[in-house]
Amino acid sequence: MDELAEIRDRMRAFTRVRDWEKFHDPKSLVLAITGEVGELAELFQWLPAERAQSLATTGKLHKRVGEEMADILIYLVRLADVMEIDLADATFSKLEAISRKFPAAEYQGLAPVKD
Amino acid sequence: MDELAEIRDRMRAFTRVRDWEKFHDPKSLVLAITGEVGELAELFQWLPAERAQSLATTGKLHKRVGEEMADILIYLVRLADVMEIDLADATFSKLEAISRKFPAAEYQGLAPVKD
Amino acid sequence: MDELAEIRDRMRAFTRVRDWEKFHDPKSLVLAITGEVGELAELFQWLPAERAQSLATTGKLHKRVGEEMADILIYLVRLADVMEIDLADATFSKLEAISRKFPAAEYQGLAPVKD
Amino acid sequence: MDELAEIRDRMRAFTRVRDWEKFHDPKSLVLAITGEVGELAELFQWLPAERAQSLATTGKLHKRVGEEMADILIYLVRLADVMEIDLADATFSKLEAISRKFPAAEYQGLAPVKD
Repeated sequence: MDELAEIRDRMRAFTRVRDWEKFHDPKSLVLAITGEVGELAELFQWLPAERAQSLATTGKLHKRVGEEMADILIYLVRLADVMEIDLADATFSKLEAISRKFPAAEYQGLAPVKD
Repeated sequence: MDELAEIRDRMRAFTRVRDWEKFHDPKSLVLAITGEVGELAELFQWLPAERAQSLATTGKLHKRVGEEMADILIYLVRLADVMEIDLADATFSKLEAISRKFPAAEYQGLAPVKD
Repeated sequence: MDELAEIRDRMRAFTRVRDWEKFHDPKSLVLAITGEVGELAELFQWLPAERAQSLATTGKLHKRVGEEMADILIYLVRLADVMEIDLADATFSKLEAISRKFPAAEYQGLAPVKD
Repeated sequence: MDELAEIRDRMRAFTRVRDWEKFHDPKSLVLAITGEVGELAELFQWLPAERAQSLATTGKLHKRVGEEMADILIYLVRLADVMEIDLADATFSKLEAISRKFPAAEYQGLAPVKD
């Protein structure tokens, strides 16, 4: 089975068996995503920007970053399920859209700054 | 190929061909995720909580929600790549961890409130 | 002295005496704000929307909400200082701008949805 | 009148005259704060960290940063009002708390990393 569908199905079962569907309305799930992104931000906030990657790709910090990113993905997939969105489809469509929106020749080395 | 690996590879190529690797340090990517979560939050903020799901699972809003969620996933997968994290592995591990952390019998119908 | 200037001055002194100016570049401070907003979101995420206000205006939760909001304000004021922005001026200007942008008669009872 | 009380009173009047109290439950306001923090993050995300301050303290970007920070403060003050929190009190209390929590001698030049 595809990964995103498998995560969706596991979270769906996890939620049902705990009778937690009632907590998972869209606004609550967006707040949950916000909470997890906040935890991820806290892991990086005081690292020197140019050393953040090397400092955080090993050891305990690396593991914690992975855990926070997993939390974000879990709630994102759960929200997609509640919203009846095919997250894989939406993502592959978006990847095509940004390839058209930012032609490689035109944006060579330039940040994709919105007008 | 697995979906998350495919998204990762497409974003890696998308980034390389535009010479955008220099923008994708971890702190910048966490800010990008924050930006996209903010856009998602704006779609829901003023909807009545009990009607948010039904209002946003059809029409133009449904499409926009899918696009914002795709943006979050794209940057999340990109950050995982930069951080050398296997996001699928991290997520399945986390799913197992939360199943153990919140035993179904004990948390039946109760919110997973952190102490 | 005005409140925002006093918070600014206290944080400036707090930062200087700890030799923490080096941590307070804009991107790091925006991540810090993100982290604190995430903590605030976590306090509310699983509360029923229609009871969130009453549940959180008393007791231990009320105190914690106040603490998280204070953290957000502290980092916001600190960022304004680093950015050489007069936050009070910017805020009063914005209050006037939104009064013009959303005429009361036109938006009576209607959410300020962006196009 | 103190600044925060004045912002609070103006937003209270702004909200009442538009009949927008119904939109301002705590969860919606936290989502609104999240949205504004996202907009702030987008202004900084692709700036080189070491040049972000100088690039953003002049010109059009400086003005936009001030506007987004104002939006955050406006919703933060509004949430405090709805939550019956004295934001100035909470903030001065927090400033004292962090001064005690991070003794200057002990944290000299060291990031306030949570364990």
